[in-house]
Amino acid sequence: MKPAILYHTDQATKTRREILQVAVDIASAEGLEGLSIGRLATELHMSKTGTFAHFGSKEQLQLATVETAKEIFQEEVVQPAFQSQRGISRLKAMLENWLGYVEKIVFRGGCFFAAASAEFDSRPGAVRDKVAALTRAWMGGLQEEIAFAQSLNEMRASVNPAQLAFELHAYVQEANWAFKLFDDKSAFPCARRAIADSIAAASRKASRRKIPRRRGDE
Amino acid sequence: MKPAILYHTDQATKTRREILQVAVDIASAEGLEGLSIGRLATELHMSKTGTFAHFGSKEQLQLATVETAKEIFQEEVVQPAFQSQRGISRLKAMLENWLGYVEKIVFRGGCFFAAASAEFDSRPGAVRDKVAALTRAWMGGLQEEIAFAQSLNEMRASVNPAQLAFELHAYVQEANWAFKLFDDKSAFPCARRAIADSIAAASRKASRRKIPRRRGDE
Repeated sequence: MKPAILYHTDQATKTRREILQVAVDIASAEGLEGLSIGRLATELHMSKTGTFAHFGSKEQLQLATVETAKEIFQEEVVQPAFQSQRGISRLKAMLENWLGYVEKIVFRGGCFFAAASAEFDSRPGAVRDKVAALTRAWMGGLQEEIAFAQSLNEMRASVNPAQLAFELHAYVQEANWAFKLFDDKSAFPCARRAIADSIAAASRKASRRKIPRRRGDE
Repeated sequence: MKPAILYHTDQATKTRREILQVAVDIASAEGLEGLSIGRLATELHMSKTGTFAHFGSKEQLQLATVETAKEIFQEEVVQPAFQSQRGISRLKAMLENWLGYVEKIVFRGGCFFAAASAEFDSRPGAVRDKVAALTRAWMGGLQEEIAFAQSLNEMRASVNPAQLAFELHAYVQEANWAFKLFDDKSAFPCARRAIADSIAAASRKASRRKIPRRRGDE
């Protein structure tokens, strides 16, 4: 039998995780500001006091929600990409997993970080700082993989990793935005084509070209 | 002297416009949901009743705010682009004016429509429908200009206008997102370069190529 104190801690951790999983889903659709202890207590059929005990303040709840979203993003998007070989393969996996996580609606409100950054970009404070740091790290991860592809000679040295990462990141965010706003999935093939074309244009092989080599090819 | 009733109407229109200009600015940064009659009354040193009289409900206020943002977007972005010749010139002007409107901070919260779509994409109703319709019209305008450039033989017939519009739209939204979240302007040159490269790659002249024609050019 577990000692009571340990059981208590395990149970508290489990409850906290359950609360946070609901919190992430609500926040992705209705915003982190819409996340109140009362709202969570109602959804979870818990007392307000019981729910509040897990978080010291609304900001603590928001920060814990962002942390949970980060963990889910890592499980769904980042870790599976580690299965792919470094360089172009992993870069493609990172982008495809990210698109897939939006497309299969892991969170009701689409990409949690796109929603959170739009909501908090004009609200200085710890939540915005955390969202910005995580997003910057992801953008940095894309850049690093591009630079790695260059070191493997898979991509041309003349490609600017920051520029290409900006473009690739933009395509996934645009697909998320269009899917959520227009409620149709036609933006996903556009994003996939843009990603494939951009990577092909930057790669040594350049097998799929945006521009025909000779005029006569058109 | 104006008849009293007409004066009254003029004055009401003027006050309504003043309220809405403040409303657009607040909504761009803090969201349309954060827009309360009370908040507006405080900012404008008006009575709540006086402010409320101009709008029947919160939704009416939100819809009127979106309408005002549309008018400002038309003045700042759309109409000045009509000065440019149709085709690639006008397409470039549309995108550059849009970037400029974000960069010079016409609204405190960056692009009003990017903020409003992120906020309302999971909230069905008249506000979301209006934001979606306006955004779709703008995206359609970019597509039309691309198709027009093709009809002028400025762009290759093989370019898919919906695909190219998706990519160009994505670059400006990405710049807005990065500028607002990271509070630095380094995304603007990235967006400008991506726009210039994409348009050049799609154009007949294709003077700025993403891919060297021959391997030896690298």
